[in-house]
Amino acid sequence: MRDVAVIGVGMTKFGELWEQSLRDLITEAGMKAIADANLSGSDIDGAYVGTMSAGKFVGQEHIAPLVVDMAGLSNTHIPAVRVEAGDASGSVAFREAYLAVASGAHELVIAGGVEKMTDVSSSQMVNIQSTSCDQEWEAFFGASMSSLYGMMARAHMHRYGTTREQLAAVAVKNHANGVLNPNARFKFPIKPEDVLKAGMVADPLTTYDCAPASDGAAAVILCSMERARKFTDKPIRIAASVQASDTIALHDRRDICTMDSVVLAAKKAYAQAGITAEKVNLAEVHDAYTIGEIMAIEDLGFAEKGKGGIAAASGETALTGRIPINTSGGMKARGHPLGATGIAQIIEIVDQLKGRAGGRQVKDAKFGLAQSVGGTGATAVVNILEGGL
Amino acid sequence: MRDVAVIGVGMTKFGELWEQSLRDLITEAGMKAIADANLSGSDIDGAYVGTMSAGKFVGQEHIAPLVVDMAGLSNTHIPAVRVEAGDASGSVAFREAYLAVASGAHELVIAGGVEKMTDVSSSQMVNIQSTSCDQEWEAFFGASMSSLYGMMARAHMHRYGTTREQLAAVAVKNHANGVLNPNARFKFPIKPEDVLKAGMVADPLTTYDCAPASDGAAAVILCSMERARKFTDKPIRIAASVQASDTIALHDRRDICTMDSVVLAAKKAYAQAGITAEKVNLAEVHDAYTIGEIMAIEDLGFAEKGKGGIAAASGETALTGRIPINTSGGMKARGHPLGATGIAQIIEIVDQLKGRAGGRQVKDAKFGLAQSVGGTGATAVVNILEGGL
Repeated sequence: MRDVAVIGVGMTKFGELWEQSLRDLITEAGMKAIADANLSGSDIDGAYVGTMSAGKFVGQEHIAPLVVDMAGLSNTHIPAVRVEAGDASGSVAFREAYLAVASGAHELVIAGGVEKMTDVSSSQMVNIQSTSCDQEWEAFFGASMSSLYGMMARAHMHRYGTTREQLAAVAVKNHANGVLNPNARFKFPIKPEDVLKAGMVADPLTTYDCAPASDGAAAVILCSMERARKFTDKPIRIAASVQASDTIALHDRRDICTMDSVVLAAKKAYAQAGITAEKVNLAEVHDAYTIGEIMAIEDLGFAEKGKGGIAAASGETALTGRIPINTSGGMKARGHPLGATGIAQIIEIVDQLKGRAGGRQVKDAKFGLAQSVGGTGATAVVNILEGGL
Repeated sequence: MRDVAVIGVGMTKFGELWEQSLRDLITEAGMKAIADANLSGSDIDGAYVGTMSAGKFVGQEHIAPLVVDMAGLSNTHIPAVRVEAGDASGSVAFREAYLAVASGAHELVIAGGVEKMTDVSSSQMVNIQSTSCDQEWEAFFGASMSSLYGMMARAHMHRYGTTREQLAAVAVKNHANGVLNPNARFKFPIKPEDVLKAGMVADPLTTYDCAPASDGAAAVILCSMERARKFTDKPIRIAASVQASDTIALHDRRDICTMDSVVLAAKKAYAQAGITAEKVNLAEVHDAYTIGEIMAIEDLGFAEKGKGGIAAASGETALTGRIPINTSGGMKARGHPLGATGIAQIIEIVDQLKGRAGGRQVKDAKFGLAQSVGGTGATAVVNILEGGL
């Protein structure tokens, strides 16, 4: 299979965007990506769209041809595929788009992600988010995404001595990064005590441990590395794209303090990219909950198992730290429109590797990693991008 | 890209299967396919699952890793991707699986489709089916799948003189075929007057013009043609797999008496397979409504535009006719569990090309075609399979 590059990116702001519908959002993101790649929409020969639950959120399935249509490209009749993998939907769309180009089946592909979440009630929100868990053995008995992550947090604290304050440090850092990101939903700093004193969602996780359900969309354009320089001076190479699965239910896992799907995907991704974790200059990881980021940096090899909390609290993962994590503000501060998140992660890495990340720029970054999880880890995707080529 | 073969197939009965959940259904189909391919489940290195709206039907998204898990294969951690494209979801899953093997990214892939539809009320059913149309400009204003197909039927009758009796002939033929298919939902013959006298759904379409919402699942196993003979004496080659899109809303089309997405996908599929429509020995087409089959045989080149009704009524598309259409009974008699239908079509073609279609066997069939549509044609997939190799 041939090398593939990201040649353009575009995203909406993430937030409570009452004035924009799902189709408005993904069209805005797609148009921006097409403009960023310096091409005409009619050059695109394939589309992949990740959305978790547009059917339940806004009553619309069959999203992919809708997106092509709304972009004014229905006359191209290109194949348009919607993929879904809980809140990893965007990352899976990215990987399918990557495979479509790597195989030679397609030349210029757009990969988008979108979710329009904020038009439903709080109880519907919990219900819909829980559809990425095991409906029959988790959600039916009252387990929600928050309570399942709460259990992971408690287990991690019990086994490794991770503290409430270390969890809070993740949120504080990501809000600090979000201040520097124009597209972030939350652009205000918070203090550790804000997290500790916030309303309890699922013990030990408070409101500030949880990423906000948001509206938003993001899109990227892929083509072969060979052709990429026609469109951009700074093509970003997809050095690895790996997906793995695990049991749908958390209670069926070997261990709830680690995600085997992430460990395995990371291992294969490092092998595909021909690098080790030490070579990665920055990473966007799945911080739907603060404990998620702590487990991610361990499972990706950026910290020893059980030491993720220490790494977070010591500043190692801060913008100026050893391995900057979630420079975009992460899902915590950027916002978490489920299907859009995986693509937004890619966009942050691309912008960093191109040196256009503004006030949150990581210096001399060559390799960036994006890790995304569906549900509590039944799907994991790890992508590694390379710049400076 | 390399040649790809179907080496195993499996499906459940289609019907109102109250004793089986979504996970029961897809597991049964997957296990049968694995057994038919003479392999162990742990040999599989990728899974694609098509389901249109499991989120709305049974409250479960994130279906793909669930399926792998239920099959007892969670310890393989293989990538598992759910795709959705309305009632073409199964066909799109098949095409993604095809691309995954053709590209060399995967070796042995399972492509499944499933829908568990009959646990919802009639009004929910209409609502959910309509999510594959344009939510904002069709469904919101009361248009349903049935009413949109009713409009297509009236336009076709007006422009080409297609008659109510010709529409009925499609249903009569498909029921006659369904009698011969052990997995079909309806195994009883009907007469033209049964169709004409049945309750009106959306003028001119009566109950017997519409495929029944059903529960069911289907799965197939794909591997490279080169490796296929290790598993089967009769590998079935995927000679072409093409997908195309069109506007999501029917009223935005150039013409509502033809589906441009189908015409284009068929044209490309014939080119990929290196054959013409005349070389096709049988086809499974999208008869969610009888007018759908009439338009399909025209758009696929089996009848001149406007003459599809005549072809249906004259027996040309019967089991013993010039070009047998929907030998399985089609969606009309086999049943139409949305996500499963596209895979079930492939299974019928495989069984026919392998000479194991029992009482409905088409003699000396070499090329079989499967055509699937999402919504009113915003997605179209055309697959051509070749046997006797």
